[in-house]
Amino acid sequence: MNKKPLILVTNDDGITAPGIRMLISIMKEIGEVVVVAPDKPQSATGHSITINNTLYLNEISTEEADCKEISCSGTPVDCVKLAVAEIVKRKPDLCVSGINHGSNSSINVIYSGTMSAAVEAGIEGIPAIGFSLLDYNWNADFSHSKKFIRKIALEVLQNGLPEGVVLNVNIPKMQENDIKGIKICRQAKAVWQEKFDKRQTPQGRNYYWLTGEFVNLDRGDDTDEWALNHGYISIVPVHFDLTAHHAMQQLNTWNLNEEN
Amino acid sequence: MNKKPLILVTNDDGITAPGIRMLISIMKEIGEVVVVAPDKPQSATGHSITINNTLYLNEISTEEADCKEISCSGTPVDCVKLAVAEIVKRKPDLCVSGINHGSNSSINVIYSGTMSAAVEAGIEGIPAIGFSLLDYNWNADFSHSKKFIRKIALEVLQNGLPEGVVLNVNIPKMQENDIKGIKICRQAKAVWQEKFDKRQTPQGRNYYWLTGEFVNLDRGDDTDEWALNHGYISIVPVHFDLTAHHAMQQLNTWNLNEEN
Repeated sequence: MNKKPLILVTNDDGITAPGIRMLISIMKEIGEVVVVAPDKPQSATGHSITINNTLYLNEISTEEADCKEISCSGTPVDCVKLAVAEIVKRKPDLCVSGINHGSNSSINVIYSGTMSAAVEAGIEGIPAIGFSLLDYNWNADFSHSKKFIRKIALEVLQNGLPEGVVLNVNIPKMQENDIKGIKICRQAKAVWQEKFDKRQTPQGRNYYWLTGEFVNLDRGDDTDEWALNHGYISIVPVHFDLTAHHAMQQLNTWNLNEEN
Repeated sequence: MNKKPLILVTNDDGITAPGIRMLISIMKEIGEVVVVAPDKPQSATGHSITINNTLYLNEISTEEADCKEISCSGTPVDCVKLAVAEIVKRKPDLCVSGINHGSNSSINVIYSGTMSAAVEAGIEGIPAIGFSLLDYNWNADFSHSKKFIRKIALEVLQNGLPEGVVLNVNIPKMQENDIKGIKICRQAKAVWQEKFDKRQTPQGRNYYWLTGEFVNLDRGDDTDEWALNHGYISIVPVHFDLTAHHAMQQLNTWNLNEEN
């Protein structure tokens, strides 16, 4: 008899966000679910961990036997570390993070708490997927994403993932029937052009808000940006060996070990 | 006549840390220095940015004409963004981050505020280097690192870096004469095995401290861990295209676009 897969669910928008509630409901149809997610929004925390502060866990009472929910005072990466070390009885078969309210395509992956949680799970040897919807609205409509998220999660449970690889899935904001399909993509080369909004406190002190404009510099048709702009769900396989292997040969031509 | 190179200096241990003070003194011998660094320790903040809070800058008065110092209330990545958008008059010729008090070799790169600042500069098209010393002590002896940091910075100023690549430099804790040289390396495959330290508040509530043990799973002699353990300074070229290109072919064999 097949045992139900154990699925760890987390996010960076906090445990009450509509995105994670949708993800939990999808995962409950597939397996036994444990939720460990931040007790408050933690967007853009990247791969931050809490080493200079204490961490608290709070079990949230649910009436369902197939789902344990715990909120955590830390970052998304803390949630994964605590879940694995202190909460689950065995290594999860899958970790899903999201559904993020907003895009994590292209260079956004590097700032994303949602994706950092997935990456942390990957580092710990758990197949992991981050899901994001291209809609920053708290009341975004996630309903069209359900079928595709289920499909991708089942594929990962069935096939596993290559070692050291996690998936970054972004879903366009459109009706289900308008989505053309799912594409495996590379990360588009793009940047945020910062424009700080400079203001003054009532006491006359200057302060700044970080704002900016996303600029896609990549004209390729194999990128996540291309796919999303053309009605596809994008999947970018992401790794955490950050070595730029292609640059090693060039650096080895430098005279680093000769005296000036 | 050659203009002095403009060098942006930042870190994650805070603007008063001995590591950044040493780095500033080395860079002043090479170029015109602008320091924008956190006003408090920001270790392990990863690529975190401040989007739900205000940011403050404080200019610190220095008597030297060739060095401007500004502390920032945000993360290391915020510091780089603010420096580029609001403080420097032209794009810096080099950004250096550190010297971190503690290792950023292997998987540590992914949690590191020091390296995230360098990566952010790289994203913005600035040649960038993160420097770390394998000594967590606040009063660590950085003197032996001076010669090597100067050498590496000058090489980068002279040769530039391949597009999309920044350098992760780690320096062993030993006497200058015992250092065997500098090696270009790949990131060792390693993990932190978490061991949370569970305690109780005086009021009887459980809380946790994140601790753990670093475990190197990689027996290669081309890794940063090998180099550091054998008396070499390690340089890993790091990139921020996280696409696992080698995994794309395999994922393209999945039946993602067929109905169940």
